[in-house]
Amino acid sequence: MRIGELSSRTGVPVPTIKYYVREGLLPPGELSSPNQASYEDSHERRLRLIRALLEVGGLSVAAIREVITAVDDKDKPVHKLLGTVADQLVPSTGRDESDAETALARTKVARLVADRGWAVNPGCRAGEALASALAALSRTGHGRFEEVLETYADAAERVAAADMAFASRASGREDLVESVAVGTVVGDTMFAALRRLAQEDASARAGATP
Amino acid sequence: MRIGELSSRTGVPVPTIKYYVREGLLPPGELSSPNQASYEDSHERRLRLIRALLEVGGLSVAAIREVITAVDDKDKPVHKLLGTVADQLVPSTGRDESDAETALARTKVARLVADRGWAVNPGCRAGEALASALAALSRTGHGRFEEVLETYADAAERVAAADMAFASRASGREDLVESVAVGTVVGDTMFAALRRLAQEDASARAGATP
Repeated sequence: MRIGELSSRTGVPVPTIKYYVREGLLPPGELSSPNQASYEDSHERRLRLIRALLEVGGLSVAAIREVITAVDDKDKPVHKLLGTVADQLVPSTGRDESDAETALARTKVARLVADRGWAVNPGCRAGEALASALAALSRTGHGRFEEVLETYADAAERVAAADMAFASRASGREDLVESVAVGTVVGDTMFAALRRLAQEDASARAGATP
Repeated sequence: MRIGELSSRTGVPVPTIKYYVREGLLPPGELSSPNQASYEDSHERRLRLIRALLEVGGLSVAAIREVITAVDDKDKPVHKLLGTVADQLVPSTGRDESDAETALARTKVARLVADRGWAVNPGCRAGEALASALAALSRTGHGRFEEVLETYADAAERVAAADMAFASRASGREDLVESVAVGTVVGDTMFAALRRLAQEDASARAGATP
């Protein structure tokens, strides 16, 4: 198909498509004449992935490039690929990481991961994000909130199992990455909203207590 | 105590304390002489609340004022107070709310709330945030992800019960609000990080499949 059709099929304006090609996010079309390129269904799928990562995931062009490089690296096992996607989706904490609260929080994260037998590196980006949250609690005098950690971890295991079941139905690497990216980002928003609704329900039931 | 001691106890600079008084977030101290005011323990607690809402919750001064007005309104039942806090913590979606996807998503949220018997208004801010997430899924061609909704809602109920158990140990309205605000905001971050760790674990176990 021509670039105009690719644009109307995906809703992505022609200049934006050309920008993605220049930035290396989208392979160039095959030249059918000196100033006309032809695009395939694979371009349409790739554009849909870019749009999902950008609009739903809020990823930068640089982060999208990392993800796409991983998708295209056929030697990369799928779970490493998913690790790359997840890393781009967890914002870096940007916190001072050398204070006493963070050091203590890291040992807590490592213990939690070991106790649960999770096959992950506790120093990965998600582990650091958790340590950063625990350190913030401690700094503001709310270290007590850690008592909910095990309940949260149980709930996270159930949610992750549902996420995996959803992702396992994907056909091919590109579809899988898109499912994981969309599920991860929209999933966070969905869960936060559901938690708020369930809190309000529990609070209304408890009436004027405590 | 004098303003200098209040500042050193809380780590909030004197000009910032004066700014909070001008903005109506903190009651003025009692004048002990024409240019000297005296502050109580209640001022220290209030400053700690403001700091938690600001630094951990990322709330604006206007949002903090709403919360504090609700705390000070002693006629307001506790669950209404918590509703006010929760509302300030859920960012408004800012989406176009009149499209077909959103209309359909709203009916799904209303059905979920009814099926679960949650004593909440599905049109509240959290309900709108959920509808907005579902509409985004549908718009990007990932409506299928809705299959995880019931698992998410189950997990959210467990997490909310742990949140409530934590909050129920608060002493007094101000401590309660602070617990809820901190728990809600840090809780979102904690849960998202735990979900990511559990996903990576599940993915590593599944090996190179699918």
